[in-house]
Amino acid sequence: VAKRLEKFKTTIFTQMSSLAIKHGAINLGQGFPNFDGPDFVKEAAIQAIKDGKNQYARGYGVPDFNSAIAARFKKDTGLVIDPEKEVTVTSGCTEAIAATILGLINPGDEVILFAPFYDSYEATLSMAGAKIKGITLRPPDFAVPIDELKSTISKNTRAILLNTPHNPTGKMFTREELNTIASLCIENDVLVFSDEVYDKLAFEMDHISMASLPGMYERTVTMNSLGKTFSLTGWKIGWAIAPPHLTWGVRQAHAFLTFATSTPMQSAAAVALRAPDSYYVELKRDYMEKKAILVEGLKEVGFKVFPSSGTYFVVVDHTPFGLENDIAFCEYLIKEVGVVAIPTSVFYLNPEEGKNLVRFTFCKDEETLRSAVERMKKKL
Amino acid sequence: VAKRLEKFKTTIFTQMSSLAIKHGAINLGQGFPNFDGPDFVKEAAIQAIKDGKNQYARGYGVPDFNSAIAARFKKDTGLVIDPEKEVTVTSGCTEAIAATILGLINPGDEVILFAPFYDSYEATLSMAGAKIKGITLRPPDFAVPIDELKSTISKNTRAILLNTPHNPTGKMFTREELNTIASLCIENDVLVFSDEVYDKLAFEMDHISMASLPGMYERTVTMNSLGKTFSLTGWKIGWAIAPPHLTWGVRQAHAFLTFATSTPMQSAAAVALRAPDSYYVELKRDYMEKKAILVEGLKEVGFKVFPSSGTYFVVVDHTPFGLENDIAFCEYLIKEVGVVAIPTSVFYLNPEEGKNLVRFTFCKDEETLRSAVERMKKKL
Ligand SMILES: CSCCC(=O)C(=O)O
Ligand SMILES: CSCCC(=O)C(=O)O
Repeated sequence: VAKRLEKFKTTIFTQMSSLAIKHGAINLGQGFPNFDGPDFVKEAAIQAIKDGKNQYARGYGVPDFNSAIAARFKKDTGLVIDPEKEVTVTSGCTEAIAATILGLINPGDEVILFAPFYDSYEATLSMAGAKIKGITLRPPDFAVPIDELKSTISKNTRAILLNTPHNPTGKMFTREELNTIASLCIENDVLVFSDEVYDKLAFEMDHISMASLPGMYERTVTMNSLGKTFSLTGWKIGWAIAPPHLTWGVRQAHAFLTFATSTPMQSAAAVALRAPDSYYVELKRDYMEKKAILVEGLKEVGFKVFPSSGTYFVVVDHTPFGLENDIAFCEYLIKEVGVVAIPTSVFYLNPEEGKNLVRFTFCKDEETLRSAVERMKKKL
Repeated sequence: VAKRLEKFKTTIFTQMSSLAIKHGAINLGQGFPNFDGPDFVKEAAIQAIKDGKNQYARGYGVPDFNSAIAARFKKDTGLVIDPEKEVTVTSGCTEAIAATILGLINPGDEVILFAPFYDSYEATLSMAGAKIKGITLRPPDFAVPIDELKSTISKNTRAILLNTPHNPTGKMFTREELNTIASLCIENDVLVFSDEVYDKLAFEMDHISMASLPGMYERTVTMNSLGKTFSLTGWKIGWAIAPPHLTWGVRQAHAFLTFATSTPMQSAAAVALRAPDSYYVELKRDYMEKKAILVEGLKEVGFKVFPSSGTYFVVVDHTPFGLENDIAFCEYLIKEVGVVAIPTSVFYLNPEEGKNLVRFTFCKDEETLRSAVERMKKKL
């Protein structure tokens, strides 16, 4: 294995989902729904396949999908962008992250990362040879330590990787935090790579796109995907929105990482993004019910549950149960209780910082959530 | 844009396919069929979507598809491999190439490349910081210059990138050439990254997989895809086969480039790979007819046509028509004649070497091929 990837292990999602299958455990680990996506989107994919939309898409996206992305971005942020010059379709948001980092970051560039973080951020920054500067968000509220951020950011900082709503904590960056980050970025000429895949799963406050803050669009790559919002995580459709000079870098990396993304699925994704507002309202209502079931249940089981404002994840402190760390706890949970959660230490530069925390997902039907809670009540 | 990608332009395929649309020209440029893939594969994808196979696939592939890939590899090469440890599913062969190179090549490693080459090879090697050593295959037969290869290969060589049947020339590496490359690799402890996406489009001789030569499996990554064989280039399903120690590197890069590949399309791809032999016989027969139409036509138009043994491409010398180079010729061809071909100079480390050559594809229905020939006869 090349040195750039030497320190990384099999991703925790692959490990945990395999263990779930092996032990017949209820999988509240990896973030994929155990219910299906909406029929109108599936029908659109079927129609596209039947209609023969089965050859190479244009490298940066099927024109109609690029337009749908721009239209949704306008609806969400008020910003008018050019779908031909500022939108790049990718094979999931993971590829958007890889293309953004490999396309825009040079070896030695400093990049700031908020821990805990989705594991691909660190690995991809390592592939690009970036110098990673970590800033830890700490429970209970995972607030941005502004002074630490100020002293970390410098003339050598090239970019900040942001994720709001935030995986794994469910934190949503507040307007005040985002404003502070924005002014530091403008002052120090820093880019923001903003992963907003959970933007439609914002429960306690409105989602704010970094790109929508004054002066920020021109220095932001906004990344998103179809999977979470439309419960179709297996379709692997993502995108990156950025001004033309940044889009150029994203597209060049994308051209040589995957070249193009599935044509029939892009057709269907265009239909999805044109869903009426009622779709999103219903999605949110469903998820709020699921969240209530899981959060109440976890509290009854005896966890200390940290508030989650968005995403379909919630983080808890497992130490009441007396296991030495998050990995040991998750092993016990799988083998003795029959439930899968995700240990969070893998999401920190210093794994010690995550040793008390594990993540549960509530993107499962209510019965599954209730059964998982029952198992924990009985056996923990 | 990051330095690793600075020297690269918009890929020639994107450029030329856009120009084709803009000028209403017949597109014999980018290699995608203008006919549809087989119904039994499309039906399988539709069924998978209906059946709710729409959530994240296992990172390295849907188990049934990994098995189908191993079974096909056994049928093709006689080699028995472990689908769980030696197969990685990727988002097209382009991603297999990227994951292989980023997962196994360190900055400064020497990698040998035969020119002309599919453009992603050079760009991806550049992303990995490899030291590229080019060896040019020259017309009329594009034979491997063995002495040059011997003097280029050294203790610093980490890998050779191979592509047989070869895009753009249609050359198939002979058993003798492959044996020579193999013994040099074994002698110097060199890996082979072998792109074999056109293996089923082998017209004049049998395809030989590098991995099937004695002592080579353990040092070879064999890359392939669904698109060319099943006329479904837009589905973006590829894979890499390698012994476990090399698969590890490929999977680690893949995990952070795209994480996983479309679940319903993998289900369908498994069905495709289990097609009866008659499917491949018919495919080959159809392509031999198309090839005959295009090759005869190009000769009548007045090109010097180089023999193509495999792939769906043929390379010609355009100099009888008096334009200064391949780019100028292709521009004239689009604007004045209404036909798109691909200039080959972009496929060389030294563009000068490709200035007399352009590539045509015959993966189009017969009427399209005949119309293109007619246009050239009239206007060239
Ligand atoms: C590849 S898993 C992607 C992110 C997610 O769903 C998770 O964090 O569980
Ligand atoms: C992205 S184009 C892939 C290869 C091909 O089809 C071509 O060379 O035209």
